[in-house]
Amino acid sequence: MIYFDNAATTRPDSGALQRAAEFITELYYNPSARYGGGFAVSKSLSSMRESLLKSLGAAGRYDLIFTSCGTEADNQAIFSCGRRGNVVTTAGEHAAVFSAVSELKNRGVEPRFAPVERDGSVKIENILSLVDEKTSLVSVVHVNNETGAINDIAAIARAVKEKNPRTVFHSDGVQAFGKLHFLLPQEVDLYAVSAHKIGGLKGMGALFKRKNLPLSPHIYGGGQENGLRSGTENTFGIAAFAYAAEEKFKSLKEDSLRLRTYREKLFAGLDPSFFTRLSPENGSPYILTVSAAAMRGEVLQRMLWDRGLCVGTGSACSSKNRFSRVMTACGYREDVLDGVLRMSFSPATTEEEIDIAVGILNSTVKEYQRNTH
Amino acid sequence: MIYFDNAATTRPDSGALQRAAEFITELYYNPSARYGGGFAVSKSLSSMRESLLKSLGAAGRYDLIFTSCGTEADNQAIFSCGRRGNVVTTAGEHAAVFSAVSELKNRGVEPRFAPVERDGSVKIENILSLVDEKTSLVSVVHVNNETGAINDIAAIARAVKEKNPRTVFHSDGVQAFGKLHFLLPQEVDLYAVSAHKIGGLKGMGALFKRKNLPLSPHIYGGGQENGLRSGTENTFGIAAFAYAAEEKFKSLKEDSLRLRTYREKLFAGLDPSFFTRLSPENGSPYILTVSAAAMRGEVLQRMLWDRGLCVGTGSACSSKNRFSRVMTACGYREDVLDGVLRMSFSPATTEEEIDIAVGILNSTVKEYQRNTH
Repeated sequence: MIYFDNAATTRPDSGALQRAAEFITELYYNPSARYGGGFAVSKSLSSMRESLLKSLGAAGRYDLIFTSCGTEADNQAIFSCGRRGNVVTTAGEHAAVFSAVSELKNRGVEPRFAPVERDGSVKIENILSLVDEKTSLVSVVHVNNETGAINDIAAIARAVKEKNPRTVFHSDGVQAFGKLHFLLPQEVDLYAVSAHKIGGLKGMGALFKRKNLPLSPHIYGGGQENGLRSGTENTFGIAAFAYAAEEKFKSLKEDSLRLRTYREKLFAGLDPSFFTRLSPENGSPYILTVSAAAMRGEVLQRMLWDRGLCVGTGSACSSKNRFSRVMTACGYREDVLDGVLRMSFSPATTEEEIDIAVGILNSTVKEYQRNTH
Repeated sequence: MIYFDNAATTRPDSGALQRAAEFITELYYNPSARYGGGFAVSKSLSSMRESLLKSLGAAGRYDLIFTSCGTEADNQAIFSCGRRGNVVTTAGEHAAVFSAVSELKNRGVEPRFAPVERDGSVKIENILSLVDEKTSLVSVVHVNNETGAINDIAAIARAVKEKNPRTVFHSDGVQAFGKLHFLLPQEVDLYAVSAHKIGGLKGMGALFKRKNLPLSPHIYGGGQENGLRSGTENTFGIAAFAYAAEEKFKSLKEDSLRLRTYREKLFAGLDPSFFTRLSPENGSPYILTVSAAAMRGEVLQRMLWDRGLCVGTGSACSSKNRFSRVMTACGYREDVLDGVLRMSFSPATTEEEIDIAVGILNSTVKEYQRNTH
């Protein structure tokens, strides 16, 4: 099976699993426990936290709060900092941000959604025109998970702070972390990341928080994570996350360049009479979204699976509606929306897989057409 | 190392780890994905959910929402159902409930705490006297995690519903699930459990919810868990949890009887000139809490660790204050509070370990006394 749905979840790295195993079978102690085993785990957590902070050049400037997933990290940012006035975000957000900001309406806070461009990115001016003196929070996704479009969140955050310095700026960095070269700029107050999108384990995420930014817990209890996230620490998940991130950051630039070449090779190989490109060329090298117009992406997806190619159709997280909310916001016609296929890669993706995938994709759409005409 | 801190966290069962491994290395697909791999995982999740529901005789009557830990499950129950009037709980709750209920004050809801008895349990009349027509939620811990005292939550829930049928009843069942024989009575609307206390993995909990009870999400996003808990499902954590629970329920009665004998043997072996029993005899067989009065529990704990015995001192989750909040609420003097040691067992605990532990405990307190006098 060629697995091109890495934006939904990745196969965990074997090195990360080895690291996790140590905290499952030996150092299984509760890190809050005040005896040797607890101290050892607690000390390891500190160094893993530092390692993750360093990966975005954030050590000393930011704190890191471990959460149970990227969605929880986004929720904590939004519900903690979006408590008054209005909250500005985009129509291209992942559901973790979109649904949480939408929920704010029930809590007396006005949600405002900036429109997105054809590729899923947002223009600075469309964010700025919604920001006013009552804006408590702005949240803009770093890499659009359905198209791979990259938002220049450093520039957007700077512009937002110029217009209203009291506005907190959050970004969902789940599809960027460990993939794009990026150092956290001071204007970005909060940044949410996830482990299982980069070879770590499900059930683990984190929120980077600028030091001195006041933040409330989203989960209350024993006071772990400096009081900001209670519940026994998922020590092995943290260990796998830190390890996977270290590995990804080591070869980030080479991986990125290589996957960009693969992505272009894949698109170049697709039969242009069937496939339209929806992902921008300057987007994430890890995502190529296309549409086989007038075909049903879901049907194609299953046919491709049967032929040994695993791809996504928009976000795997929200599978209730016929069309993707984000792709709809990009302004595509219904026949284009129907045929959306997302191919998403990992550093383990090989050129051979790309070549085989091209063949499978082209033959599958032809067969689809034969069967339906 | 003899590990008697199983109420803080357990060493994961090897069978549960094998089950988890399948969902890490092979069935790592996102269960929301609509292709073969996603369907397979999603189907497995359904059967694991059913298995857990059956373990409390709740299949068909309750839904099960997977969360990232017991604390999150408690938080969801409290923040969703404690939105008006007052919320009644006890002074003997785990921090997951105590802190969440305390936070309600900031949200315009009045928290009310019933006093507890010497053993940490709460009397029905002390709950009832706080319940009135404005009580939206009552939350009572099933097994006190610091003393092992068991509350008859079925009787308490029934009495609460008689006084105010509109009150939602929640219980933190983290230290009871997989240990006490218990079938969910219809009066208990919500019941929180955790995986890593019974041989599952950290980062996994669940909330039993009576069908038809309206509940809000605590984490918003892609709409997983029937819209009640968003975020990619922690599939391997669920698999380990379901497996560990099945194993525990298989031998629950025998384990319980055997550990009760061990618990009594352990206490009977302790030198009565040093140790006072704080756990009730009719409490959980999995917990024996004692006090070595006028000694510092924390110091003893480290000495015991050095001698190969790992024990707790009250809840490992809250290690900020000198005295345990719960043990203080039980009404003990400061010298008793200082010396609290909690020994907590698992079905893997052996009689030989009990015998060795007795020797270590008795010799350690004597040495402690020699050193300090």
